[in-house]
Amino acid sequence: MDEILNGGIPRRNVVLLSGGPGTGKSIFGQQFLYSGLQAGEPGVLVVLEEHPVQVRVSMSQFGWDVRPYEEKGIFAVVDAFTAGIGEAAKRERYVVRAPDDFQTLLDVVRAAVKDLNARRVVIDSVTTLYITKPMLARGVVMQLKKALSGLGCTSILVSQVSVTERGFGGPGVEHAADGIIRLDLDEIDGTLYRSLIVWKMRGTRHSMRRHPFEITDKGITVYHDRVFKSRTAGRE
Amino acid sequence: MDEILNGGIPRRNVVLLSGGPGTGKSIFGQQFLYSGLQAGEPGVLVVLEEHPVQVRVSMSQFGWDVRPYEEKGIFAVVDAFTAGIGEAAKRERYVVRAPDDFQTLLDVVRAAVKDLNARRVVIDSVTTLYITKPMLARGVVMQLKKALSGLGCTSILVSQVSVTERGFGGPGVEHAADGIIRLDLDEIDGTLYRSLIVWKMRGTRHSMRRHPFEITDKGITVYHDRVFKSRTAGRE
Amino acid sequence: MDEILNGGIPRRNVVLLSGGPGTGKSIFGQQFLYSGLQAGEPGVLVVLEEHPVQVRVSMSQFGWDVRPYEEKGIFAVVDAFTAGIGEAAKRERYVVRAPDDFQTLLDVVRAAVKDLNARRVVIDSVTTLYITKPMLARGVVMQLKKALSGLGCTSILVSQVSVTERGFGGPGVEHAADGIIRLDLDEIDGTLYRSLIVWKMRGTRHSMRRHPFEITDKGITVYHDRVFKSRTAGRE
Amino acid sequence: MDEILNGGIPRRNVVLLSGGPGTGKSIFGQQFLYSGLQAGEPGVLVVLEEHPVQVRVSMSQFGWDVRPYEEKGIFAVVDAFTAGIGEAAKRERYVVRAPDDFQTLLDVVRAAVKDLNARRVVIDSVTTLYITKPMLARGVVMQLKKALSGLGCTSILVSQVSVTERGFGGPGVEHAADGIIRLDLDEIDGTLYRSLIVWKMRGTRHSMRRHPFEITDKGITVYHDRVFKSRTAGRE
Amino acid sequence: MDEILNGGIPRRNVVLLSGGPGTGKSIFGQQFLYSGLQAGEPGVLVVLEEHPVQVRVSMSQFGWDVRPYEEKGIFAVVDAFTAGIGEAAKRERYVVRAPDDFQTLLDVVRAAVKDLNARRVVIDSVTTLYITKPMLARGVVMQLKKALSGLGCTSILVSQVSVTERGFGGPGVEHAADGIIRLDLDEIDGTLYRSLIVWKMRGTRHSMRRHPFEITDKGITVYHDRVFKSRTAGRE
Amino acid sequence: MDEILNGGIPRRNVVLLSGGPGTGKSIFGQQFLYSGLQAGEPGVLVVLEEHPVQVRVSMSQFGWDVRPYEEKGIFAVVDAFTAGIGEAAKRERYVVRAPDDFQTLLDVVRAAVKDLNARRVVIDSVTTLYITKPMLARGVVMQLKKALSGLGCTSILVSQVSVTERGFGGPGVEHAADGIIRLDLDEIDGTLYRSLIVWKMRGTRHSMRRHPFEITDKGITVYHDRVFKSRTAGRE
Repeated sequence: MDEILNGGIPRRNVVLLSGGPGTGKSIFGQQFLYSGLQAGEPGVLVVLEEHPVQVRVSMSQFGWDVRPYEEKGIFAVVDAFTAGIGEAAKRERYVVRAPDDFQTLLDVVRAAVKDLNARRVVIDSVTTLYITKPMLARGVVMQLKKALSGLGCTSILVSQVSVTERGFGGPGVEHAADGIIRLDLDEIDGTLYRSLIVWKMRGTRHSMRRHPFEITDKGITVYHDRVFKSRTAGRE
Repeated sequence: MDEILNGGIPRRNVVLLSGGPGTGKSIFGQQFLYSGLQAGEPGVLVVLEEHPVQVRVSMSQFGWDVRPYEEKGIFAVVDAFTAGIGEAAKRERYVVRAPDDFQTLLDVVRAAVKDLNARRVVIDSVTTLYITKPMLARGVVMQLKKALSGLGCTSILVSQVSVTERGFGGPGVEHAADGIIRLDLDEIDGTLYRSLIVWKMRGTRHSMRRHPFEITDKGITVYHDRVFKSRTAGRE
Repeated sequence: MDEILNGGIPRRNVVLLSGGPGTGKSIFGQQFLYSGLQAGEPGVLVVLEEHPVQVRVSMSQFGWDVRPYEEKGIFAVVDAFTAGIGEAAKRERYVVRAPDDFQTLLDVVRAAVKDLNARRVVIDSVTTLYITKPMLARGVVMQLKKALSGLGCTSILVSQVSVTERGFGGPGVEHAADGIIRLDLDEIDGTLYRSLIVWKMRGTRHSMRRHPFEITDKGITVYHDRVFKSRTAGRE
Repeated sequence: MDEILNGGIPRRNVVLLSGGPGTGKSIFGQQFLYSGLQAGEPGVLVVLEEHPVQVRVSMSQFGWDVRPYEEKGIFAVVDAFTAGIGEAAKRERYVVRAPDDFQTLLDVVRAAVKDLNARRVVIDSVTTLYITKPMLARGVVMQLKKALSGLGCTSILVSQVSVTERGFGGPGVEHAADGIIRLDLDEIDGTLYRSLIVWKMRGTRHSMRRHPFEITDKGITVYHDRVFKSRTAGRE
Repeated sequence: MDEILNGGIPRRNVVLLSGGPGTGKSIFGQQFLYSGLQAGEPGVLVVLEEHPVQVRVSMSQFGWDVRPYEEKGIFAVVDAFTAGIGEAAKRERYVVRAPDDFQTLLDVVRAAVKDLNARRVVIDSVTTLYITKPMLARGVVMQLKKALSGLGCTSILVSQVSVTERGFGGPGVEHAADGIIRLDLDEIDGTLYRSLIVWKMRGTRHSMRRHPFEITDKGITVYHDRVFKSRTAGRE
Repeated sequence: MDEILNGGIPRRNVVLLSGGPGTGKSIFGQQFLYSGLQAGEPGVLVVLEEHPVQVRVSMSQFGWDVRPYEEKGIFAVVDAFTAGIGEAAKRERYVVRAPDDFQTLLDVVRAAVKDLNARRVVIDSVTTLYITKPMLARGVVMQLKKALSGLGCTSILVSQVSVTERGFGGPGVEHAADGIIRLDLDEIDGTLYRSLIVWKMRGTRHSMRRHPFEITDKGITVYHDRVFKSRTAGRE
């Protein structure tokens, strides 16, 4: 991604990572955090869709073992999934006990970021926060942006769109973000293809091309020197 | 399907089986359970759309006689259709007396899974649970996922979409599932064709192709070595 | 239709007969009942859109004189149109006095089916039962299915869709039926063409083709050995 | 139109005359009534959109002078436009004083039909009766059908659709009518063309073609021996 | 326009002038009034979107100086914009003090028309009257039609549609008007083109073609002898 | 832009600057203000989406250092983002303490314009003012237009539309503005292209072409002598 973004996501940017089901959004976000850890940048992963235990298992399948970083205090999972219910949840350090209350969630995220002096934050997914209350979408994203950017973090907000949706998550959300990365999975002549495009990114001269990518057992590999052309043609 | 999924649906995955009317979703789910029985994996079929007696008749038409397995205590039908009304219903072991109350249903399913030590569960259909309350869809799927995955089951949730609908059951549902298998029935030049595609499947490297399939008197046969190409072309 | 359905609609199936205005749904249903009478199968026609007197006149125009069968007690019209108001209505045997109340209608239909020991039932149209209350559609169809199938009848539910609608009557309705037959009327190069397709039919290996048909003064003639191809091509 | 309808609209049929703005619906209806008068069939024109005085002027521009027929008591205008307000309205014989109350309108129409022993009725437009209450559409059309058909009239209900609307007036309305005639005005390569098609007509073998027509100073001329082909092709 | 309308808009007609933003509707209406003044026909311009002072400035830019006509008492601006607030508004003769109250507006318009014995009226725009209350649209247009036609005026109602809207202002509005003139601005291969078409005009044999037009510093010039063909082709 | 607008935006015009996410609307507005400063025209930037501090940083990245102009009292940022909360906000001169109350905002903007004798105003974005209250959109834009035009300012209202939206911000907004400039970002064969078109501009003969533009580290460069043709073709 570095070649495509001309040096990575600029500091303090809040980026919307938008895509349909199965496009690899969660993996992308986890890889962003793990790369940060390897480069010495503390990170926080806020999970709203999956059990924290399951998330660690999924990450380890790509070779991303976060346990040592959790022990060193430079990585944390914020559990906004279990509401603290269940044995495994009791072992989590950061738990949002009322995941339906956005202010509670924001408080726990802020605490985690400060404790770790985190530089990278991923919220998977931000859509969960307003799926039954679409009028709140812009407000939620604006508050996250103020908080995370104010804390000095570079952030990815995972935005789930329907498989038939060409937008990025609604007008309020699309314009509030500093950047938009779109992941796509398209069926062409009976075969599924993965591609991504950086639609917007403040503060950097990003690639203006759509690039193919693959998900292997080591995570996402983007082909920055190839252009994925078929999609537009197939659509119109 | 094993070639297409590279070894079957990974353990504990909750898979959305999405398709329009007449695409073969119920048959697919029943075959998944019957194959499990033959391999020694206990299974539970939760029926919300059809009388349990009729379901057993339908299965037997494909040569899938579940009576011996029911007697051995490794297969069960959960009747969420009759509400216990009628003579035949009185002979059922697992009956959801208030099918409109999701918690009641979940309790009966849990009990059946524990009694049988079930490894496979099919819910036919999950759409019935929120057809008049679409705002609840994501919550229902998330709770099923927590419960079934927590019990160690590999599950198929049948998702009914309209014949004109290209989505898989709505944004909340599509993203909550660990996997999505789509069954299609397309009319091309006056002829109906069946095909399926695995859109998403956590934990395995599945086929990225759309495959033709047939429904014969032995059930579903998927042609894993053939690609069904006409559909995309005909659509755009 | 027998060749297309490979022996007719299987016993106890509840079939959705879906089509736009002018596609011949009522004629199809009446012909289904009249063929039954000729083969010795008692039948019931539930009319919600037309005066029973007018229905008998319409049928006689195709040479289908039902009076003798009514007298023999093997055919009956259930009048869910007049609410018993008017002279002619007083001569009807089966009258639904509160056509807006579905339970009342169901009671009268059940009584008629039992009296005649009916094997075939047509409801023209089922759409009328929920046209102003779409949320009830699935429930109505499910109840009809339980009742009619339970009584041993093979049934046709006429489903009216708009001329521009490609669906069969909504997701709840499409999936609840055991079979779907779609009648179409398409304008191609300034000429109207009739065709039908069996989209789904449990318990039989039906034709997977779209067939042209005609309405003559003897009723509907389906060309089971011809395929109507132009429609798909003209649509995409 | 007689060639196209194979002898005219069958007796007692209630026909929906559907078209966008400027397609000639009012002229078609007026010509239907005037032809009736010339053939000795009394007629009633129910106007909801235009002042009765203006309607008579418009008709006279096509050479259709209805005054002598009004004096002979075989033609009448039912004024459902002015509510009886204004000098000119005071001279009208049939006035609906509460045009928003459908039962009042129905009573006046019934009275006029009986007084004149009318054989033909045109309601211009029926859309006005439910434009702000679409849920009532089917009920209004069904009541008109029962009343007018019961009185022995052949009727035309003018149905206004938007210029971009391909339907005939909504599902409830389309299926309730005995016949549907559609008037179209299409722009092709910068030129407007008029055409009509009979989509449905109970009790007659009508033309299955789309025919061009013109509006001259003598009214509508339909070219029954020509087919208008360009429209479908231009649309798909 | 005279060639296209075969002699101008017929007397007492109420014409809908429909178009997207930037299509020249206001200029067309102002030119219609100024041509009337030059031919000795008094006129009234009802402004709802622009300050009366600004309107006079805009008209003078095309060489249409209305001041002398205002002084002679054969032209008037009805100010339904300022509600009488501001210095400039105090100098206006016809002011609608409650522009949100349609009856007030109608009264002022009636007074102005009677004072001037106006023959031409333009309402710019009628859309403003029901933009937040679409259910009222037909009623507003019908009342204006009764009032203006009753006063002997030929009128233009400016109807604003969205840039993506192909209709003329909604079904109630489209059918209520005696005529419809549509102005379009289309982008074809990176260039904007202006064209207009008369879709409907009672009482005259208007052009059935789409004509290109230009806006110069002398107002609108329509090319009645040229046809604008590209649009339809580019659309389908 | 001067060549395209034939001399710039005419004095007192209120222009809608419409575009999807990532099209460069904010940069366009900032450049408009900075050019004014260089030409001696005082300007006001009203920010609703971004922290004032961040806005100054963003502008400086294009070489637009506004600090000296702020000190000279000919440039001001109106902070309608922070509500005065936070250390940095305390240093701002013009703060809207209740950004949700439109009248408060209007008062602060008026004060700033008067203090600076501002000639140019940019509101980034006007969409924020009615995103959850679309019925208010036209009223908000009309009030801004009256106020800003009345104060003698030439103004740009940034209008955010969704990436899939072809309109400019809704019918009420599109027609209220004196001018419309549209910025686009289109993906063609896997590459993103920027272009703009002036759809409407009162008081000047603007270019009727779509022009390509680029965003470099010096801001926006429009190629007034080139036409961007691909877009229309790719769309239809």
